[in-house]
Amino acid sequence: MDDAFLQQLFEEHHRARKLPSPRLIEDWLDGLLQFLFPELSTLRFESEQSFRLHYLTNDLKFYSILDAMSEELTESPDAVRCAFEALLPSVRGALIEDAEAILAGDPAAVNRVEVITTYPGFYALAVHRIAHAVHGLGACLLSRMLSEIAHGKTGIEIHPAADIGRRFCIDHGTGIVIGETVRIGNDVKMYQGVTLGALSVQKEMARTKRHPTIEDGVVIYAGATILGGDTVIGANSVIGGNTWIVKSVPPDSRIYYREPRID
Amino acid sequence: MDDAFLQQLFEEHHRARKLPSPRLIEDWLDGLLQFLFPELSTLRFESEQSFRLHYLTNDLKFYSILDAMSEELTESPDAVRCAFEALLPSVRGALIEDAEAILAGDPAAVNRVEVITTYPGFYALAVHRIAHAVHGLGACLLSRMLSEIAHGKTGIEIHPAADIGRRFCIDHGTGIVIGETVRIGNDVKMYQGVTLGALSVQKEMARTKRHPTIEDGVVIYAGATILGGDTVIGANSVIGGNTWIVKSVPPDSRIYYREPRID
Amino acid sequence: MDDAFLQQLFEEHHRARKLPSPRLIEDWLDGLLQFLFPELSTLRFESEQSFRLHYLTNDLKFYSILDAMSEELTESPDAVRCAFEALLPSVRGALIEDAEAILAGDPAAVNRVEVITTYPGFYALAVHRIAHAVHGLGACLLSRMLSEIAHGKTGIEIHPAADIGRRFCIDHGTGIVIGETVRIGNDVKMYQGVTLGALSVQKEMARTKRHPTIEDGVVIYAGATILGGDTVIGANSVIGGNTWIVKSVPPDSRIYYREPRID
Amino acid sequence: MDDAFLQQLFEEHHRARKLPSPRLIEDWLDGLLQFLFPELSTLRFESEQSFRLHYLTNDLKFYSILDAMSEELTESPDAVRCAFEALLPSVRGALIEDAEAILAGDPAAVNRVEVITTYPGFYALAVHRIAHAVHGLGACLLSRMLSEIAHGKTGIEIHPAADIGRRFCIDHGTGIVIGETVRIGNDVKMYQGVTLGALSVQKEMARTKRHPTIEDGVVIYAGATILGGDTVIGANSVIGGNTWIVKSVPPDSRIYYREPRID
Amino acid sequence: MDDAFLQQLFEEHHRARKLPSPRLIEDWLDGLLQFLFPELSTLRFESEQSFRLHYLTNDLKFYSILDAMSEELTESPDAVRCAFEALLPSVRGALIEDAEAILAGDPAAVNRVEVITTYPGFYALAVHRIAHAVHGLGACLLSRMLSEIAHGKTGIEIHPAADIGRRFCIDHGTGIVIGETVRIGNDVKMYQGVTLGALSVQKEMARTKRHPTIEDGVVIYAGATILGGDTVIGANSVIGGNTWIVKSVPPDSRIYYREPRID
Amino acid sequence: MDDAFLQQLFEEHHRARKLPSPRLIEDWLDGLLQFLFPELSTLRFESEQSFRLHYLTNDLKFYSILDAMSEELTESPDAVRCAFEALLPSVRGALIEDAEAILAGDPAAVNRVEVITTYPGFYALAVHRIAHAVHGLGACLLSRMLSEIAHGKTGIEIHPAADIGRRFCIDHGTGIVIGETVRIGNDVKMYQGVTLGALSVQKEMARTKRHPTIEDGVVIYAGATILGGDTVIGANSVIGGNTWIVKSVPPDSRIYYREPRID
Repeated sequence: MDDAFLQQLFEEHHRARKLPSPRLIEDWLDGLLQFLFPELSTLRFESEQSFRLHYLTNDLKFYSILDAMSEELTESPDAVRCAFEALLPSVRGALIEDAEAILAGDPAAVNRVEVITTYPGFYALAVHRIAHAVHGLGACLLSRMLSEIAHGKTGIEIHPAADIGRRFCIDHGTGIVIGETVRIGNDVKMYQGVTLGALSVQKEMARTKRHPTIEDGVVIYAGATILGGDTVIGANSVIGGNTWIVKSVPPDSRIYYREPRID
Repeated sequence: MDDAFLQQLFEEHHRARKLPSPRLIEDWLDGLLQFLFPELSTLRFESEQSFRLHYLTNDLKFYSILDAMSEELTESPDAVRCAFEALLPSVRGALIEDAEAILAGDPAAVNRVEVITTYPGFYALAVHRIAHAVHGLGACLLSRMLSEIAHGKTGIEIHPAADIGRRFCIDHGTGIVIGETVRIGNDVKMYQGVTLGALSVQKEMARTKRHPTIEDGVVIYAGATILGGDTVIGANSVIGGNTWIVKSVPPDSRIYYREPRID
Repeated sequence: MDDAFLQQLFEEHHRARKLPSPRLIEDWLDGLLQFLFPELSTLRFESEQSFRLHYLTNDLKFYSILDAMSEELTESPDAVRCAFEALLPSVRGALIEDAEAILAGDPAAVNRVEVITTYPGFYALAVHRIAHAVHGLGACLLSRMLSEIAHGKTGIEIHPAADIGRRFCIDHGTGIVIGETVRIGNDVKMYQGVTLGALSVQKEMARTKRHPTIEDGVVIYAGATILGGDTVIGANSVIGGNTWIVKSVPPDSRIYYREPRID
Repeated sequence: MDDAFLQQLFEEHHRARKLPSPRLIEDWLDGLLQFLFPELSTLRFESEQSFRLHYLTNDLKFYSILDAMSEELTESPDAVRCAFEALLPSVRGALIEDAEAILAGDPAAVNRVEVITTYPGFYALAVHRIAHAVHGLGACLLSRMLSEIAHGKTGIEIHPAADIGRRFCIDHGTGIVIGETVRIGNDVKMYQGVTLGALSVQKEMARTKRHPTIEDGVVIYAGATILGGDTVIGANSVIGGNTWIVKSVPPDSRIYYREPRID
Repeated sequence: MDDAFLQQLFEEHHRARKLPSPRLIEDWLDGLLQFLFPELSTLRFESEQSFRLHYLTNDLKFYSILDAMSEELTESPDAVRCAFEALLPSVRGALIEDAEAILAGDPAAVNRVEVITTYPGFYALAVHRIAHAVHGLGACLLSRMLSEIAHGKTGIEIHPAADIGRRFCIDHGTGIVIGETVRIGNDVKMYQGVTLGALSVQKEMARTKRHPTIEDGVVIYAGATILGGDTVIGANSVIGGNTWIVKSVPPDSRIYYREPRID
Repeated sequence: MDDAFLQQLFEEHHRARKLPSPRLIEDWLDGLLQFLFPELSTLRFESEQSFRLHYLTNDLKFYSILDAMSEELTESPDAVRCAFEALLPSVRGALIEDAEAILAGDPAAVNRVEVITTYPGFYALAVHRIAHAVHGLGACLLSRMLSEIAHGKTGIEIHPAADIGRRFCIDHGTGIVIGETVRIGNDVKMYQGVTLGALSVQKEMARTKRHPTIEDGVVIYAGATILGGDTVIGANSVIGGNTWIVKSVPPDSRIYYREPRID
């Protein structure tokens, strides 16, 4: 091994800021999901106090993570932790509604336990709602790490800044991309391979709205691509599979794909 | 943390049925695959008896899993375990044929060891044939958990109830979705991003055939979408990439995609 | 369990060549990435010597892996290890350029730490540049195992033999397939779901160029499919999303997708 | 394996009360010692809150242990836990005095860190003062398990009920036995192999004082045996090595061993 | 590091026979004790079959151990394993009697659970009865490894060849040494620091009886030393603490220690 | 928990110097013993280089330990590490002689493998010779931690500063105490419970010779106590069991214990 290379690497290692380990972040996330959804937990608690102490144990991991990333926070790690805790009841409430909506809409779903324990769309959404809360509190890098955990496990990529309404259903989901400035209303349903992206990806566009808006009640079938910050899919529209949309469509639209010729 | 929220969560945790841990299920599945395919096993066995004892050890995990989920079974955990064991020789036989077919059909494949150890399509199919056997014995939630393990690792989603013939080849595979009531014949080949889905997803359609039938010898290229319970792709047809099929095509069809214009 | 089946399996296990465990390979790869990118490492080193010794520890894992797979090597495991080490400075140099290019081109990217720690496109490329070096030294099965680790985590499949130029940017990435004989120039950018594949997949075509060539400065949007060994995308072309390309296009082309009708 | 034997064992296992695992008890004890003595802790805490949360994590283990053994408690697990916590400052205060006394009295001891991290006598005493507090709160079986952990590691056996004064010094210590009803004053020093035992071991003597009393300032050299519930070693006596004492000696006694003849 | 030294060591390592790892042996021993004594087990078994499968799992470890040491066996590893299994009911029966005898004789013992879970004398005896069975089946090195596990944990050293009768009680126990050719009758009780050793330790005496015989009902107090192959302690004798015995004493003897003078 | 107590503890934790973890020290020691004695190693090395790399891995642990304790060293951690390495061949040479001497002298010993893998006396001596080298290089606290690892496992306590000649045999060993300024010649043999201690333990005596000298060829039987810095046991003497020696004895002495009366 080249000596100068090793020496240079050592110096970079020596100077580098140390982030919390990915394993710690995953452990905390798993613990939090098990806390919020008894269906995911394999532990039995004999008393409420042991349950509370167990919760605190997981919270300590969150604190350590924030502490190690405090450089990028505008408030103290503890203030962030407390503010996050205050959001948990509403995060959970939204996710319970999501699970019920998935169950009501998918003919293959048997019961809520199945949805919560096996649907990648539910998992990705659960991680998103948590990452979105973390992002809103200023821990942006951590929120991205969280969304990438879900992306890695499900193939569903949702930027933590995306704003998603209630009772959102993702079916199958692999290949979905939902960009940073997307806004999604209530009761939207979406299938695998859908992209909600930007038309232009110039660096100058950072911090402008460059991804579409999806109004209430829209259904978007597999493989559809919807691009642009001014693109609005009007309420209750149905967007067919494999379509390509770069301008707004009015409410109640039906956008279909032309069938290929059969030779 | 809000006290009422914690108390409510504790009560839900206290009442919740406890499922076997995901890690236990993955460990059993890994052990079973290593048992069936020596190429995947890193253990050396000095004698047949130590091999048998090792097999029993893994079987104990399966028993524990079934035991913890016995509420949803119609037969005793042990009856299910025995019936599953009886199916293993034919499951393995089918998978050996699948591996040979992949090797014969992919110019990049070097030998059977490479196929078994590195092809995500083979892995997803191996898990499917196991999950399908488990599903047939009534352990539906477990079968879904198994198929989601493969989905998470490969991006290939195959519902455990789907009925798949012999010598099935998946190449690349990311983004494939194969629905609950799909029927696939023998010698079918399929590329990444193919969807075999439902046309309508009304909850009332549960338990009806709502996904297509693919007859023997069909090839389906990347990104094709085939929908509907009455849609039959006739034997030996070739379905081109990115096509969109919602009605039946006769045997020996060639369905191509129109090229886009070049401006 | 059927006795003859168990006995046959034992015999196959007994005869089988034992590969290194997947966990060992992943551990080595993780260690190597942490060594090359201080942003990924959670360890602090007090002195250069402890850093060097730590590097050697990881190198030992690589040696063990090569040793266990020496049957398929044309040189001694140690010769391969040394040759690989000599390539590391240039592998790292290329990856630093890739990270800078991603940062410069993506409006959502905040800084280099975020790119290196959270972008699946960067991870897949980092693993590819390592796997490509390993492949070039003759350890083909190992190189495939490495690329499948990245495929499993990111949904991005790059054959280790593919030849990729400098400053390559992948955004989102899920569903990308880059075939064995692909050649990609410098400053190419690519989105999710792009396929660079073969037109025909006859086994006889093994070892011929059957995947496309992408010249410098090309941008390929999401879902595009480009097929064929003679297909060349000329320099600085832009290939629109969801397009289907099976023949060459000249430099500076703009290929767009026709919008579907709105009924 | 004999079937009837296996069946009988299964039935006993099925009926048996399950104690907390030895590993859990050791983990809690280690955590508590590290909490009380920073010299033993390898963790760094960035803030007081992370320290408190860490303490709570260990406390949860104690709670789980008490919960699993609640059958033998006369108060609720939580009441015991709280009462134990209230004792910790005085337990620690006594142990700091013990460490200082060992340091002051042993010519081989270099500093307090060495005493706390390497002296088995200090470790056994630390565990005893904790076990004694636990015993006093009614968790007798747990207190015995704790004292046996120290016994196994140091060869020093101190019954948790034994009443030991301040600034107690044990040097070397292997083979020391201190019985259930022993009373030891302040500033006592004791070497390896000393027994403070019972003269008679009839079962009827349970709960009577059957082990000796050692008054303030006594020194007992290696291998001395002192027996009987009425035996009192008067203050400031020196008991020589290998002596055998079964009746009281007045204060300031010097008891020596006769030298053997040299043939 | 000296090169010749490293090279020589490598050659020795290369030639060396590999024994099973100490951790594997301890794991098996722990599993066996938990199987025999439900008081030591922290697992719950839902059905007899899961219990049997669990037993087999532990048995596999024993098989692996014997397999790795088969060079020193006169019979096949499996024949040894089967013969050992056939002895387990009587080993367990003897140990239940031992536990009852300890409980009946020690005023500090509260119940059988306490004896089995916390008495080092019981633990050492349990390991001895297992090691003695293993020794009788010809696995001498393994039997020594087992007895050293107990020695390390309790300070009680019992050679696996020693022949020990029923209802044997050890109290405290640290420092006890029981030699290879010792014979102990029924209902013997022994305290800490007792040595049953050889008078002469010439190598030529290997395989002759060189350690004492203790007849039924003898009590031996702490620190007594009894030496010689012809030395017989007659039935129901009481041997006082710290005594030194090198010739036989008749039944019903009382051997006391002279008290030292008080100056 | 009392708030002031927690706050005070946190402050002490915050200020405390952090020592290397006991587990790291034990891991290094185990690795070193396995390196020196192939009989203790369970790893197979395919090539000399993989053996060397493995050795370096363990050496890294030693370096980390020294680095963390560098405050108490007079030379750089690396200088200490190198000097220690240079001593290893002679340490190993001495231990091989010790093992041969134990085998030659103990009628129960079967072969060298048994001595090295199961004799606590050999283990304690191996750790002592390593700790003595470490002590000689100025790492005093580390040397004490090493000797306490052996003390905890064997009940044999040897101060790392003690000076011990060649072919030293310990039989059984539990309860042996060998003080800081002891000097032992060649070919000495010693049994369990022997103390080589100080007559007076005034703190002022630190750094003076206060423990006995044992000349070549002496045998010391179980339980003997030999005290005092001026006490010299002349060459080839035999010291009987349970004796008490506080002044020198000439060469070739035979010191016996008076037998107790039989009443």
